[in-house]
Amino acid sequence: MKLRLVARVLALLSAMISIFMFWPLFWAFLDGTPDVKAFSVSIAIGFLIAAFLYIWGRQDSFQDIGIREAFAVVTLSWVTASIIGGLPYLLNGTAATFTDAFFEAMSGFTTTGASILTNIEAEPRGILFWRDLTHWLGGMGIIVLSLAILPFIGVGGMELYKAEVPGPIPEKMTPRIQQTALLLWGVYIFLSALQSILLLFGGMNLFDALTHTFGTMATAGFSPKNASVAHYGSAYIDWVITIFMFLAGSNFALHYHFLQGKWDAWWKDGEFRVYFSITTCCTFIITILLLRKGIYSNIFEALRYAAFQVVSIITTTGFVTADYELWPIFTQFLLLILMFIGGCAGSTSGGIKNLRIMVLVRHAYTELYRLLHPKAIIHTKIGDRTLSKEIVGSITAFFLLYIGLFTLATLLMTGLGLDLVSAISSVAATLGNIGPGLAIVGPTKNYALIPDIGKWILSFCMLLGRLELYTVLILCVPATWRR
Amino acid sequence: MKLRLVARVLALLSAMISIFMFWPLFWAFLDGTPDVKAFSVSIAIGFLIAAFLYIWGRQDSFQDIGIREAFAVVTLSWVTASIIGGLPYLLNGTAATFTDAFFEAMSGFTTTGASILTNIEAEPRGILFWRDLTHWLGGMGIIVLSLAILPFIGVGGMELYKAEVPGPIPEKMTPRIQQTALLLWGVYIFLSALQSILLLFGGMNLFDALTHTFGTMATAGFSPKNASVAHYGSAYIDWVITIFMFLAGSNFALHYHFLQGKWDAWWKDGEFRVYFSITTCCTFIITILLLRKGIYSNIFEALRYAAFQVVSIITTTGFVTADYELWPIFTQFLLLILMFIGGCAGSTSGGIKNLRIMVLVRHAYTELYRLLHPKAIIHTKIGDRTLSKEIVGSITAFFLLYIGLFTLATLLMTGLGLDLVSAISSVAATLGNIGPGLAIVGPTKNYALIPDIGKWILSFCMLLGRLELYTVLILCVPATWRR
Repeated sequence: MKLRLVARVLALLSAMISIFMFWPLFWAFLDGTPDVKAFSVSIAIGFLIAAFLYIWGRQDSFQDIGIREAFAVVTLSWVTASIIGGLPYLLNGTAATFTDAFFEAMSGFTTTGASILTNIEAEPRGILFWRDLTHWLGGMGIIVLSLAILPFIGVGGMELYKAEVPGPIPEKMTPRIQQTALLLWGVYIFLSALQSILLLFGGMNLFDALTHTFGTMATAGFSPKNASVAHYGSAYIDWVITIFMFLAGSNFALHYHFLQGKWDAWWKDGEFRVYFSITTCCTFIITILLLRKGIYSNIFEALRYAAFQVVSIITTTGFVTADYELWPIFTQFLLLILMFIGGCAGSTSGGIKNLRIMVLVRHAYTELYRLLHPKAIIHTKIGDRTLSKEIVGSITAFFLLYIGLFTLATLLMTGLGLDLVSAISSVAATLGNIGPGLAIVGPTKNYALIPDIGKWILSFCMLLGRLELYTVLILCVPATWRR
Repeated sequence: MKLRLVARVLALLSAMISIFMFWPLFWAFLDGTPDVKAFSVSIAIGFLIAAFLYIWGRQDSFQDIGIREAFAVVTLSWVTASIIGGLPYLLNGTAATFTDAFFEAMSGFTTTGASILTNIEAEPRGILFWRDLTHWLGGMGIIVLSLAILPFIGVGGMELYKAEVPGPIPEKMTPRIQQTALLLWGVYIFLSALQSILLLFGGMNLFDALTHTFGTMATAGFSPKNASVAHYGSAYIDWVITIFMFLAGSNFALHYHFLQGKWDAWWKDGEFRVYFSITTCCTFIITILLLRKGIYSNIFEALRYAAFQVVSIITTTGFVTADYELWPIFTQFLLLILMFIGGCAGSTSGGIKNLRIMVLVRHAYTELYRLLHPKAIIHTKIGDRTLSKEIVGSITAFFLLYIGLFTLATLLMTGLGLDLVSAISSVAATLGNIGPGLAIVGPTKNYALIPDIGKWILSFCMLLGRLELYTVLILCVPATWRR
């Protein structure tokens, strides 16, 4: 492991995080709130860290960056960003401890949206803007990671996406990443601008429109309002956010192709069709249940709240318009399942992802079929594409690790005294980068009550889930660190 | 599918079940209790069903029995046994409905031990003996199935066990099954006799010794006492049952080799070592927790109750000596995890089994390692044995199906209005063939409160779990039924 090479990349990142902090600093200045100081000091510390990393690091062999270093860069980027990004919370007193500050920042950059704040609206706009900006930046990072980097280093079956990545595929990695990143960021920024404008039309002010857009496009979920999106009580706003969450939960490469004029890009994609079907089926089932139980009397209302919550959870956003803990238990468990499924690969959403679920279902069916024809050679197929044994193996291992880490983390959370439902849902909601869970971390509550050790465990879950497990876990294998 | 061939085998089975009912009929006669009538009528109906199946069935092409018929024979054997075996409960009024009777019988034959009885001790001895006899017969069936049949038709990676099966491996299946069955049943009966004698020494009467032995050797868990094994409050009895549950949860082929004079047979087996390690580790962790929380003040008492409950759950027996719902939540979740792990392949226990867990852990680690060496050809290994891609694929698919079916059944149970913990644990406890779960199906409660549809769902879970999923699921694939 060439740590000094890694340090140089992290130096660049630290400087960038500091530069982005000028934006909340601007809001703080505008309002004349005391968080001006918090941001100024944080920016200074950020640049200091950048300088230190730059001086200690080395660039002379920059072309030597190998697969081990790539994993270290990715994982440590999120950790470094969360340390620097948490400083304003700590310095402003928003977070009482470093643990809380780190948790909130990690929750931001991993686009999770689990918060330790008990009274969000009491915070100054600078802080609230920064929370959502960390989401948006995290989302940018993830799009590039999941479409331009992971498919080419073979993480968790993402190599399936090689063919769909826009942009040229040259020999060297760096120029390709840059080109792909620019194309996808273009789509990301375009959709963000579009959503902001639509929200402005709905009567939101610029601040609210921007922060909610950031939370939506990154499928993240921090809202500057205590009641989340329920604050506005507007059907128009609910539907705009529902649609954009849904878009942000689908593969950005498809959006790129669509904007290039391939109007059937979405529907031709098998994963998109599955994602669309699961979302609509669950929405209709929940709508019917809500009407039957008399929770809403109007079908349009029931549909609006059901659709919002289903899309919010399956895309792993975590915005809230209804207290789904008052809905039937069946609905709650269905939402818990959706937390595991997540959105599409190549989106900003978390979870296992529809693509992998499809491969897993197919694999199980193939094995069943193979029992009837023990001598036949049967391949696992998705559509008309035959999957290699390597891809299937990689995806089954991903699922094993996901379930294994979920179980282990839940066990640790019960060790801290959490009840079963809180333990299970807090881990599911952080590992899947959703945000709100059930019971003590339910939609009308927050993560403030979790003990400190628990916050560290859940922070690690967010990081693991966000970086497709392998990217983080590989740093725990001794062989990675050997020269 | 040659259903008439299947019918002939089921005719034989029905007759056998009826013959075994003479045993509880004997207890009923002895006591002069009214269940004499219930058993007499059940025996008559059983023989009638046998006759009907025999006459409708055909034997002329008995050699034609193929893989499809084998799966149908196995699955329908358990269903037929549960229908006939449930008759005494219904006729005696022990069960109010056919649903309850079928549930109790399926719970017996699948060695689950989940009961709908609210006052066990109010039942006559004939009924209570029959409950435990169904366990013992189910256990006999499972040993043969898991060591003499499944390894040779390649279900869920069980082909790994081919080498360890005692007895000759001739070309034709039938004579091998017979020979292997006889050898293994010898071990089963020997261990049963040994345990009964030890329990008699502990002061149990013959009835209690036999019923508890049946419940132990089949890792099943019906007790004729309302308080289960806690009734006796004897450290000696607790430890005898703990040790025999542990033995019944290990591979019977190992016991056979051990009795043949290979004293290191247990320890040389990798799966046994893992099973032993998990059991002892969990026991020690729980012992320490119970002492620290002051639930027991004496280390020997804490160890005794912890060991009993850990072994009872990991072997999927389900006997109870302590209300573990009063233990820390961490302990409860740990026991819930053990429900999924289960005992060893080739034992009477249920769950995923240690062997599969080992392969899954190894597979995940191999995939992680492969990321660092993308061009290397790396095989998954267990000990010094290289696993074929087929076996790994078969075992990962088994895990997927296990988790998938668990999730689906839990969702259905929440649809019936169960709370999350009851839904999760009732499915885990039936799919894993344990018996007691948590909350409304906790160790001091029973399955009487579950709605009727729920009892059918859970009965199906017992069947699925007991027959290694595939054996049942394959009957749901249309291709199985095509000529």
